[in-house]
Amino acid sequence: MKLYNYAFSSGLYSEINKRKKRQSFSLYPVVSEIIEKVIENGDKALSEYSIKFDGISPDSISVSKKMMKEAYDEAEPKFIEALQIAIDNIFDFHKPQLLKGYEITDEKKFMGQKVKALSRVGIYVPGGYAAYPSTLLMNVIPAKIAGVKEIVITTPPQKDIKKLKPLLVAANMLGIEEFYLVGGVQAIAALAYGTETISPVDKITGPGNQYVTAAKKLVYGDVAIDMIAGPSEVLIISDGKVPLSFIVADLLAQLEHDAEAMAILLTISEEEVERIESEISRQVEELLRKENVTKALNKSTYVVKCESIAEMVEMSNKIAPEHLELLVENPVEVLADITNAGAVFLGAFTPEALGDYTAGPNHTLPTTGSARYASPLGTYDFQKRMNYLYYDESELVKVSAYIDIFTKKERLQAHGKAVSIRI
Amino acid sequence: MKLYNYAFSSGLYSEINKRKKRQSFSLYPVVSEIIEKVIENGDKALSEYSIKFDGISPDSISVSKKMMKEAYDEAEPKFIEALQIAIDNIFDFHKPQLLKGYEITDEKKFMGQKVKALSRVGIYVPGGYAAYPSTLLMNVIPAKIAGVKEIVITTPPQKDIKKLKPLLVAANMLGIEEFYLVGGVQAIAALAYGTETISPVDKITGPGNQYVTAAKKLVYGDVAIDMIAGPSEVLIISDGKVPLSFIVADLLAQLEHDAEAMAILLTISEEEVERIESEISRQVEELLRKENVTKALNKSTYVVKCESIAEMVEMSNKIAPEHLELLVENPVEVLADITNAGAVFLGAFTPEALGDYTAGPNHTLPTTGSARYASPLGTYDFQKRMNYLYYDESELVKVSAYIDIFTKKERLQAHGKAVSIRI
Repeated sequence: MKLYNYAFSSGLYSEINKRKKRQSFSLYPVVSEIIEKVIENGDKALSEYSIKFDGISPDSISVSKKMMKEAYDEAEPKFIEALQIAIDNIFDFHKPQLLKGYEITDEKKFMGQKVKALSRVGIYVPGGYAAYPSTLLMNVIPAKIAGVKEIVITTPPQKDIKKLKPLLVAANMLGIEEFYLVGGVQAIAALAYGTETISPVDKITGPGNQYVTAAKKLVYGDVAIDMIAGPSEVLIISDGKVPLSFIVADLLAQLEHDAEAMAILLTISEEEVERIESEISRQVEELLRKENVTKALNKSTYVVKCESIAEMVEMSNKIAPEHLELLVENPVEVLADITNAGAVFLGAFTPEALGDYTAGPNHTLPTTGSARYASPLGTYDFQKRMNYLYYDESELVKVSAYIDIFTKKERLQAHGKAVSIRI
Repeated sequence: MKLYNYAFSSGLYSEINKRKKRQSFSLYPVVSEIIEKVIENGDKALSEYSIKFDGISPDSISVSKKMMKEAYDEAEPKFIEALQIAIDNIFDFHKPQLLKGYEITDEKKFMGQKVKALSRVGIYVPGGYAAYPSTLLMNVIPAKIAGVKEIVITTPPQKDIKKLKPLLVAANMLGIEEFYLVGGVQAIAALAYGTETISPVDKITGPGNQYVTAAKKLVYGDVAIDMIAGPSEVLIISDGKVPLSFIVADLLAQLEHDAEAMAILLTISEEEVERIESEISRQVEELLRKENVTKALNKSTYVVKCESIAEMVEMSNKIAPEHLELLVENPVEVLADITNAGAVFLGAFTPEALGDYTAGPNHTLPTTGSARYASPLGTYDFQKRMNYLYYDESELVKVSAYIDIFTKKERLQAHGKAVSIRI
C-alpha cells in the first residue's frame, strides 16, 4: 500500500496512468502462431492446444443441450433462484438500451439509419480457478435483447467436469444451443475464423487473461470484439462518514481478482488514513486468497489524503476508474461531476460486489483508463446501424455543381462522372 | 473483370470473402518500431519520419488559426458554398444520433446510464495524392455534435503547401483550433501517446493506408479507434431497368480509389452482362486514373448473372458490402430485406458519389465484410456511457443471500464479505 498526500501527489497520476501501457507487443508472435495453426488445422489444433494448456481435451468439445438440461435438473434450487433474480434484473436494466433507427424525410429525398441485430456472436467465459456464471449472464442477456439469433459460448475444458456445472445451469436457463469446451487463444481463433466444428462469429465478447486479450486484439478487424480488458480496478471517494471496515472490505474484494488488480482510496479523513493499515491487516487475515491480495496490496494499492471532494473528483476523472464508489453523504450530487468511470456505486450500501451479480447493470466495464472513451457492455454492442439515402432526379441536379467542386478538389474524376452522366 | 453465373458461383463468395484476411500480421514489427521511437523521442522522431516518408518536415508542425483564416479568405466562394451545403446537411443527418441516458427508479434503489462526450479526439486526414476536405467534415461534425471540446486534426505535410488549402478552409469553417502537419504511423503514435507538441487524445478516427491502419490497431486499447478500414467497395444490384452507363460509371468511381478497390455487379439482365465489357472500355478511356482503374478491374471486379432479386439480396447480405446501390424499380421494398451493408443508395439518381460529399450521411463506413457487425461513423462514436447504481440498506439485505451464492460458486470470498460486513 502506498500513502500519498494530494498536494504532493503529482507523480501519482503518472504512476497510475502507466497501467495504460501494460499491454505488450511482445505476446503477439506466440499468439499469432497459435491463431495461424487453428486457421490451418482446425479442430485438430484446438485439441492439441487444449492438451498443452488445459491438460485435457474432451472427446467432443460440443456440450449438448441435454447435458445443460441435466445440470439444471441437478442444481440446488437456491442457486437457480439466485440466477433467476439476476437474469430478471439484468433483462430489466438492458432493455432500455435498444438502439432505434430514424429517418429524415423530404418530398424528393429521404435518408436515415436502420438498426439490425448481429447474426452470430461468440462469448468467451474464462475458466481455470472457478466457473463464472455471472460472466455468462452479463454477455448473453444483452445479446438476446438485441435479437442475436446464434449465441455461442466457449469456455476452457476442466479436468473436474463438476466445475462446469454452474455455467451449464445458466446456459440452460438462457436457452443456449451452442456451447464448446475450448479456451485460450485457440478459442478466440476458432470463433474468429471457424473450424470444422465451430462456425465463425461476427463478434467476440467476454473477458480473458492477457493471452486471450492479445488474441482478441489480433483478430479484431476480421471480427468485432467488445474491448481490450486489463486488470480490474476500484477507486473509492470517501468523506470519512462511512465505516472504514466497509471501505477496506471493498478494496480487498477488488484485490482478490489477481495480483495485477488495482485499488485506490481517496479520502478527506485524516482518521481513515491513520487507521487503514491496521484495518487492512485485520481483514486480510481472514481471506482465502490472502497471498494474491497481499501481492496486489504491495503492487498497486494507493491511499491518497485529499483536502476536498472537488480534489477527489478531479483526480478520479483523470484516472477514469473501472469501478467508482462514492462513499459520501450526498453521492447523487457528486455523481453529477463525474465524467470518466465505467460504473459508479452510490452510498454506503451499494458495494461493487452487488453490481457484479444481481443488481442489473453490466459488470463488463472499461478498464485501465479506457472509461475516458469506452462504455459498459450493453445491448447496443450486439446491434449495428446501416445508413440509407434516396434522391430523385431533381434533387441530384440541384447539388451536382457542388459535388463537382468536391471531386475536383479531391481529384476523383470518376466520382464526378458518376453524377454528371445522370444529368 | 470476372464474369460469373450465380448458379455456378459457389467459389465466388469464398473468393470475395478472402478480403477479410487481407490484414497482415507482417506489418506489425516495422509499425511497432516507429511507435516505440515516437514514444521515446517525441517531436524529434516525428520530424525524422516526416523527412523519411513525406520528404519534408515543416519548421513547425502546428498550423495556426491565422493560417486557416487566411486560406478561408483566399478560397473561391463556390468552394465555400459547397462546403457550407455539405456542413449543413451533415449536421442535420447526425443530430438525431445523439445518445441519451436513462434511469430505472424504485423507492429504495435506482440505476441507470449517463452519456458523456469524449474530451479530446484526434482525426487523421490522409494526404499524398490530394487533400480530402470531405474526410475532415465527416469526422469533425459528429464530434462537434457530441460535444467533444478538443478536436485535433493531423495530416501529412505536403511539399506543395497549396495542396493543404482545402483542408485549412474546411477546418476554419468548423472552428478547429489544433491542426498538425504529421502523417503516417508517426501521427497515430503521437495522437495515442503524445509528444512535446501534441497532447494524447482519447480516440483516433479517420482513414489511412495499410500502415496507418496497422498503427491504429496496435495502439487500440491504449486509446479508442473508429475502425479497421480496408479498401473501398461497392456492390450494385440491378434489375436491368437503369441505364447501363450509370452502373458502369458507379463501378469505375469505386475502382478509381486504388488498385485494391472492389466492385461487384449483380444483375438479372442478360443484356447488361453482354454489353458491360464494351461500356467499361468506352468509359475507362476517358479517365485520368485509367491505370489504377484497369488494375482494379483485373483484380477484383465481378459481374454475376442472377435469376432473381431474392438471389441478389441473399448474395449481397453474405458479402456485406461497404456501399450498396439498389438500382431496381422499387428500392425501398428491397431495402427491407437488406441486413448487412454500410450504406444503401436507393434508385437511379442516388449515386454513391452523392453520399461521399453533400447529402449528409457519413461516408466513413465498415469495409471488408465488417458491415456484418459494425456501423457507419456517427455522433455516437464520440460519446460514451457510464452505469450507476444505488441501493439502500433494506434492498441490500434483500439480495444478500443471492450474492452469497454467486460469490461461493465463483470462489470470490472477499466479494461476499464486502456485502456481509454491511448487514
